Amino acid sequence: MPPTNPARRQAVADAAIALLAASGVHGLTHRAVEKAAGLPQGTASNYFRSREALLVAAAERIVELHHADMNADMNADMNADMNADMNADMDRAAQRHGPAAGVPADVTGHVVDLLTESLFAAATALRTRYLAIFELQLEAVRRPALASALAGLQDTSTRLTAEQHAQLGLPIPAETVPALIALYGGALFTLVTTPPEQISKDAVRSVAAAIVRGALSGVGGEEDRDVVHG
Amino acid sequence: MPPTNPARRQAVADAAIALLAASGVHGLTHRAVEKAAGLPQGTASNYFRSREALLVAAAERIVELHHADMNADMNADMNADMNADMNADMDRAAQRHGPAAGVPADVTGHVVDLLTESLFAAATALRTRYLAIFELQLEAVRRPALASALAGLQDTSTRLTAEQHAQLGLPIPAETVPALIALYGGALFTLVTTPPEQISKDAVRSVAAAIVRGALSGVGGEEDRDVVHG
Repeated sequence: MPPTNPARRQAVADAAIALLAASGVHGLTHRAVEKAAGLPQGTASNYFRSREALLVAAAERIVELHHADMNADMNADMNADMNADMNADMDRAAQRHGPAAGVPADVTGHVVDLLTESLFAAATALRTRYLAIFELQLEAVRRPALASALAGLQDTSTRLTAEQHAQLGLPIPAETVPALIALYGGALFTLVTTPPEQISKDAVRSVAAAIVRGALSGVGGEEDRDVVHG
Repeated sequence: MPPTNPARRQAVADAAIALLAASGVHGLTHRAVEKAAGLPQGTASNYFRSREALLVAAAERIVELHHADMNADMNADMNADMNADMNADMDRAAQRHGPAAGVPADVTGHVVDLLTESLFAAATALRTRYLAIFELQLEAVRRPALASALAGLQDTSTRLTAEQHAQLGLPIPAETVPALIALYGGALFTLVTTPPEQISKDAVRSVAAAIVRGALSGVGGEEDRDVVHG
């Protein structure tokens, strides 16, 4: 009978993520995972027979954590942050420009803020997770099973990002989303491979602003010009 | 006396790059390099004593190849391509809009074309080199000597990119360049970790256009609006 303790299974996957970040793909072995998680010898291979199964388990656990965070962020943004800050932004914008001018400039600033915080957290507090994912993405070039596990990450990110844009009322065509995810994921690669002490909020904001401009410009119409240049 | 045959030294470094791309950091050993390059046992360690020295040699060789290509591209662009195509673009723009309208829209299109070709080549013909560089960048997180070798790549890319923008007459502030290099390098990570048969010129162009918008927008003034939205 295969082992069915979900907490232990998760402990093995979490230890695999930490090892990937600390020692690279070559540092991830069943024995190293057991040592890191303080589990008896043989536990890891009870749950994940091969080294590839261990790699796939790490990928699936990252996908799970990533989606949980994305959903939490969306709810937090929509409930607290957006309802409070964005309404305040809209009020201020209305005061400055009159109601007809709308709020695009302040919304843009707000999106740059959100993206800056998201990138900064990913490059600092969540650095281990993202280093692990980039190790897996490179290894997936040589392992189709791993590539399949990671494809789920790409698909769900695309869907959740499009939903997020719709909720924020951003004029970003759905077909632009894969390019934006490429830019976001890529910027993250550059950030997590930079020594953490060299990462400043200002540098992250400059990258976030470039991504938002890349997303919002050229959508067409006068209103979009305000979004970009306001 | 240390060995001094530059061609052999270069053959070792080139084989190291190919191995990094094919088998990852863990596949790069002295013996594997010797086998791949058809060199007698012991040759690789005569040139590069430790595994770390081998990794640094691969990084330095990539930096060298990258700069040679960037310089060649710049010369080709400025001499042939830009003098012919861009003058033609400018003539067409002048015919359409009259001389006062300037050429920003066509220049933007030209830059998107250049970037599309550059990203596409990097993700296909030069895929091996870029897979190797991303392997090295992740390994550099754990190896300061490797991080130093790669820092040279970042510094020179920043300088050459700023020179390229100046030559093209693009209104991109120098302080924006590191963010753009983060976006470019990052987009490339996404592209080289995608199976080559799934990479279309259109998808690459969409990423290139987003990077160019990210670079050019918000620089200020009516002229820049034309650059972005033309």
